[in-house]
Amino acid sequence: MRNPQLNEEGQLQHLLTIEGLPREIIVRILDTAASFIGVTEREVKKLPLLRGKSVFNLFFEPSTRTRTTFEIAAKRLSADVINLNVAVSSHTKGETLLDTVDNLSAMNADMFVVRHGSSGAAHLIARHVASHVHVINAGDGRHAHPTQGLLDIYTIRHYKKEFTRLSVAIVGDVLHSRVARSLIHALTTLGTPDVRVVGPKTLLPEGVEQLGVRVCHDMREGLAGCDVVVMLRLQNERMKGPLLPSAQEFFKSYGLTPQKLAVAKPDAIVMHPGPMNRGVEIDSSVADGPHSVILPQVTFGIAVRMAVMSILAGN
Amino acid sequence: MRNPQLNEEGQLQHLLTIEGLPREIIVRILDTAASFIGVTEREVKKLPLLRGKSVFNLFFEPSTRTRTTFEIAAKRLSADVINLNVAVSSHTKGETLLDTVDNLSAMNADMFVVRHGSSGAAHLIARHVASHVHVINAGDGRHAHPTQGLLDIYTIRHYKKEFTRLSVAIVGDVLHSRVARSLIHALTTLGTPDVRVVGPKTLLPEGVEQLGVRVCHDMREGLAGCDVVVMLRLQNERMKGPLLPSAQEFFKSYGLTPQKLAVAKPDAIVMHPGPMNRGVEIDSSVADGPHSVILPQVTFGIAVRMAVMSILAGN
Amino acid sequence: MRNPQLNEEGQLQHLLTIEGLPREIIVRILDTAASFIGVTEREVKKLPLLRGKSVFNLFFEPSTRTRTTFEIAAKRLSADVINLNVAVSSHTKGETLLDTVDNLSAMNADMFVVRHGSSGAAHLIARHVASHVHVINAGDGRHAHPTQGLLDIYTIRHYKKEFTRLSVAIVGDVLHSRVARSLIHALTTLGTPDVRVVGPKTLLPEGVEQLGVRVCHDMREGLAGCDVVVMLRLQNERMKGPLLPSAQEFFKSYGLTPQKLAVAKPDAIVMHPGPMNRGVEIDSSVADGPHSVILPQVTFGIAVRMAVMSILAGN
Repeated sequence: MRNPQLNEEGQLQHLLTIEGLPREIIVRILDTAASFIGVTEREVKKLPLLRGKSVFNLFFEPSTRTRTTFEIAAKRLSADVINLNVAVSSHTKGETLLDTVDNLSAMNADMFVVRHGSSGAAHLIARHVASHVHVINAGDGRHAHPTQGLLDIYTIRHYKKEFTRLSVAIVGDVLHSRVARSLIHALTTLGTPDVRVVGPKTLLPEGVEQLGVRVCHDMREGLAGCDVVVMLRLQNERMKGPLLPSAQEFFKSYGLTPQKLAVAKPDAIVMHPGPMNRGVEIDSSVADGPHSVILPQVTFGIAVRMAVMSILAGN
Repeated sequence: MRNPQLNEEGQLQHLLTIEGLPREIIVRILDTAASFIGVTEREVKKLPLLRGKSVFNLFFEPSTRTRTTFEIAAKRLSADVINLNVAVSSHTKGETLLDTVDNLSAMNADMFVVRHGSSGAAHLIARHVASHVHVINAGDGRHAHPTQGLLDIYTIRHYKKEFTRLSVAIVGDVLHSRVARSLIHALTTLGTPDVRVVGPKTLLPEGVEQLGVRVCHDMREGLAGCDVVVMLRLQNERMKGPLLPSAQEFFKSYGLTPQKLAVAKPDAIVMHPGPMNRGVEIDSSVADGPHSVILPQVTFGIAVRMAVMSILAGN
Repeated sequence: MRNPQLNEEGQLQHLLTIEGLPREIIVRILDTAASFIGVTEREVKKLPLLRGKSVFNLFFEPSTRTRTTFEIAAKRLSADVINLNVAVSSHTKGETLLDTVDNLSAMNADMFVVRHGSSGAAHLIARHVASHVHVINAGDGRHAHPTQGLLDIYTIRHYKKEFTRLSVAIVGDVLHSRVARSLIHALTTLGTPDVRVVGPKTLLPEGVEQLGVRVCHDMREGLAGCDVVVMLRLQNERMKGPLLPSAQEFFKSYGLTPQKLAVAKPDAIVMHPGPMNRGVEIDSSVADGPHSVILPQVTFGIAVRMAVMSILAGN
């Protein structure tokens, strides 16, 4: 079966998931993003690479934060951006997902940035659209959120230069995190030898070891000697039933404090996909402290999204 | 009484309804739209015709679909577009419709695209604004939706070349359709000799014959030998009371299936303004079949809206 | 303590409140706005002064009207504008105000236009952001709304040329008005000798005399011989408890009618920040009459907001 993200020449056609993305394409995205960092810092933050293209932010569940990052990235590339909050729109009139997409495609859309509550929605759309239309998955259910994974990888590369000697700990609610899955795939693809997932049994997916990671239920064991700590957001809104005793108890066991971080390498970096629950998964003294690279992640995220859009548009 | 859509030189000042629009203006819009089709297909889909103009999408009832088509059309002409969902805005603070319009005009608006639940709202605004401001009716109650009528006409002309030998069947909920009314006026103006409205008595307006159309309650009689079938959306959300037995029963009598379509001409085209209720007014095998021109309608709709805006702006 | 709105060179860094704004900066804003009036009236209403800059409309409470004026102003200066309605966004996910601002800053924001229900929110953000980021207060609780105050001042200067011989009456719900406070500061700074606030005791803040204004509870006394009448909106949505007998009774005592206006100077101008409650604080015959400059205020408001943005951006 052909990789649904690549065209017949093996070039990136859609960005749906990091799973199965060839190493050289990941590296090309990171390198392209690096070339855009300068643009986002200069006075006129504008490149004409997507001028006259129509980018649709097609959000079937609300996420102002994610939508904003794509909107900025597209506008800095001079695209025309149309925001569609589909939850409150034609779906209430009974139109199917693919009819909505067909209609927008007929308006000569060039790119869809898709956020959907169901796993596989972006894949479904990508299979359906004509060959000149590109789809970027901006989060589908618990499944994938590839630009977040790519910006995490970009951040790690920026601070640690390479992957083949790194220890990376991913901590917290791995079960409900689309971020964790994307990141694990990217780390593995780039040859990271030591990836650990750390959390209580109830928040780690069954069989997660098969992704090539080590499972730790103890925080100190999980962080010992690691170069990178990726804290995950506690997805309260996705949790159903009594998986957790309480936020306080979670913080006691798995919340990142200076004391717990002390067992990692002295130059370890701390990452978080945001938005943070301060005092639940991370202590403010760590979030705002010298190890934190949480805000640089956001900055790199814009450059990574610009890179993906630019490559998809054929630049 | 002067035509409220034309200025003293007989040029288009507002687009409010197809009723009373001179034939030569309709043809000019269609010809201008045809010249824009190429633009919407090329790499850089951008013309500078509305550069520096401010277009306000003034939506007093939500319609993401319609709003999007105008937003794209305006952006492709390089206008600045401001979306205003007025239902949730200053109206809740007790401001009148005309005060809202006066305020936006004072911000040097050039064009209002108006959607309102009440018939005549766009006319009211057009009568009120200063002479350099242009109003486009994007749907007012059951009354008119002229750009939809124009894109229907554009589509028919595209596939059938001319109107004077055509049979056109308009099927379904004519009573609640602003689309049907606009289309009937346009077809009549362009000399279509045979226009039929097809549907149950409860969904056809009383006295519809006076618009110059033939009324059929039987689907096969209505479609027999026709060149164009325009299926209307069943406006469930507008229907009050027990006008219809059920969606299933409606589909049985009036839903467009391959069998029913077989009595039309072999090269008949099938149109639908969207969004479709598949399995209610149209069968999927027809919607996605060889006679369907439903998606080209959408594409032509962008070009028609660009044409209207461009002509209003004086190009 | 350094003025939080000025940088070390004494130049405008943020616009938070008119209180404490040096006279020369106010005059510079007004003069710059005057130079933009021509732009907003010409065919191509576009200047490249903010090209490639990212302006975030950060609205923690909805105000389509105010948001629209800033969006238009920024677009006419060629900025990229991102609208964020934060009430329905990441706040529901538990992120703090400053985390939101940090994140947006990390996306290389250049300017925040902030609307918030709590007094001091814009100040808090301004203290927090990096030095290349600029904050404009678009209304914080009852505290300040400086661009409204500046456009009022612009309007008065436009019609009355100078301030040192003027009598200005500010009428109505001063207690709940962020507009009144900003305007009083501006008038005082520019040397207006006679400012009166007019209204029932329950709608005037205690100790308002200390701002240098005269208090009148009688409308005729308040308007006698004045050059400028500023009517305030009756902020029904902000009033809690039985401060007022009824809208009808308020209108009888303080609603501006031609009869009450007759005691002002013959060439008095009438202003209102909008949206108006016709028949509550102002009679339609006055709102639409020859003394009214309510719509010019709106036009000047765009130019004033362009001026503030342009000066903050270093032009």
